[in-house]
Amino acid sequence: MSQLERVRAAFAAQGFMRTLGAELTALAPGRCVITCEFRADLTQHHGLFHAGVLTTLADNACGFAAMSLLPDGGEVLSVEFKTSFLRPGAGTAAIARGEVLKPGRTLSFCRADVFMRQPDGSETLAATMLATMMAAAPAPR
Amino acid sequence: MSQLERVRAAFAAQGFMRTLGAELTALAPGRCVITCEFRADLTQHHGLFHAGVLTTLADNACGFAAMSLLPDGGEVLSVEFKTSFLRPGAGTAAIARGEVLKPGRTLSFCRADVFMRQPDGSETLAATMLATMMAAAPAPR
Amino acid sequence: MSQLERVRAAFAAQGFMRTLGAELTALAPGRCVITCEFRADLTQHHGLFHAGVLTTLADNACGFAAMSLLPDGGEVLSVEFKTSFLRPGAGTAAIARGEVLKPGRTLSFCRADVFMRQPDGSETLAATMLATMMAAAPAPR
Amino acid sequence: MSQLERVRAAFAAQGFMRTLGAELTALAPGRCVITCEFRADLTQHHGLFHAGVLTTLADNACGFAAMSLLPDGGEVLSVEFKTSFLRPGAGTAAIARGEVLKPGRTLSFCRADVFMRQPDGSETLAATMLATMMAAAPAPR
Repeated sequence: MSQLERVRAAFAAQGFMRTLGAELTALAPGRCVITCEFRADLTQHHGLFHAGVLTTLADNACGFAAMSLLPDGGEVLSVEFKTSFLRPGAGTAAIARGEVLKPGRTLSFCRADVFMRQPDGSETLAATMLATMMAAAPAPR
Repeated sequence: MSQLERVRAAFAAQGFMRTLGAELTALAPGRCVITCEFRADLTQHHGLFHAGVLTTLADNACGFAAMSLLPDGGEVLSVEFKTSFLRPGAGTAAIARGEVLKPGRTLSFCRADVFMRQPDGSETLAATMLATMMAAAPAPR
Repeated sequence: MSQLERVRAAFAAQGFMRTLGAELTALAPGRCVITCEFRADLTQHHGLFHAGVLTTLADNACGFAAMSLLPDGGEVLSVEFKTSFLRPGAGTAAIARGEVLKPGRTLSFCRADVFMRQPDGSETLAATMLATMMAAAPAPR
Repeated sequence: MSQLERVRAAFAAQGFMRTLGAELTALAPGRCVITCEFRADLTQHHGLFHAGVLTTLADNACGFAAMSLLPDGGEVLSVEFKTSFLRPGAGTAAIARGEVLKPGRTLSFCRADVFMRQPDGSETLAATMLATMMAAAPAPR
């Protein structure tokens, strides 16, 4: 199994991604895109995407971008992240695009932007994240 | 309706809280506690609480703590937050305790700690958040 | 006086910029570059640029980028910022390039990258910041 | 030389601390306090403490708190930090109190509060930081 296949398997093994209905829509070394269609059960009390949903997508986009650059079998843990919410989470889908700013053996620094797809197909930037990911040994079987 | 009742109503109106099975377990002026029982559909790929779940709970604990101190009808938006993950999200429940560090007419600075309840009833600190919340006018009816 | 001239005047009025020997090397609406030559009195204990110096430059690059887009006379306060240190602060100068990601009447979201100039003239990215700036009324005279 | 003595030596070796006139006013395992008297050359353009000065003090309070818990000879690097500015930096001195929330062999999570000493001797909380510090091998001689 290649490391990119391992990333896809890790994504598929996350119960929370299924709960959100999120999909891994693009993956390349150092880059990851995750898409989540709008649903009423993902909202805050004004009916928009909950900030926690956008952050979850961005966290995974960063984490899997980092994991994609690790040696075979390497996994990642989220050390910390910071999200800024530039615009309300109003759209038909949320698209989190993550990239590795600086890979490392121990720590990888990542960034993700979360866009809202509008009914006309255009996108607006709703949130941006800076994250630190830590390489972890593969989980024992 | 008092402002604390408005906070409870806002919590109840969040579709995402129902999705997580989260409950507002304590509320007082400037303080808010949210509890979420562990479920397999809230996990990352090692079967622990997803960092996004812990962050969502902390975001709401901060936001509703801030909202509780606003003039009647005041609402809040998350401007930004930063979460540090001190320990793995392993436990039977996640408990986010939020408080307002500095209330303000426009911005409120908040902090939340997220604890993991262990099978023996003890708690361990898994994550901590610093957040900025912005007062918003009541949504139009 | 134009708003860009007000930014230059505010920069010149900061005692701490003179202490650092920092210069405002570029300014345009929504963008600001600040440069600081290396000196031994700006170091941490390994003789590299102190993280606090890099953060100070990035804070100002963000703040003045935000101020440049405000209506005439508008000033800014730093609400909060987060800096990630990707590489050691080793170089002959630090160059902080700030930009406004999302301007606003009350809050502006900004980003800055801090580069290290190397002896051969090339640059390496040492740090990156996400910042929130708040518009403040002009200080009374 | 004990590890606490190594922390004091590292503080003394920072050129930037001398530039700020900062002093290590308390040190214990997992805790560090740094104090800096107000001076006009540490200001932003309204004559208050520059946010960068407060952040520098908090960074060091966190870093040296973390270093104090490392095995003999261990040093730390700042991975990242986030500072929230709750109140203006107005006071006769800035006092940064740092503590380790969670020590670790590789990463230590820290928090610092920065207080402003008022002319009457009271203190107000001006800023708070969450920081991640990384253990580094001792620098080669």
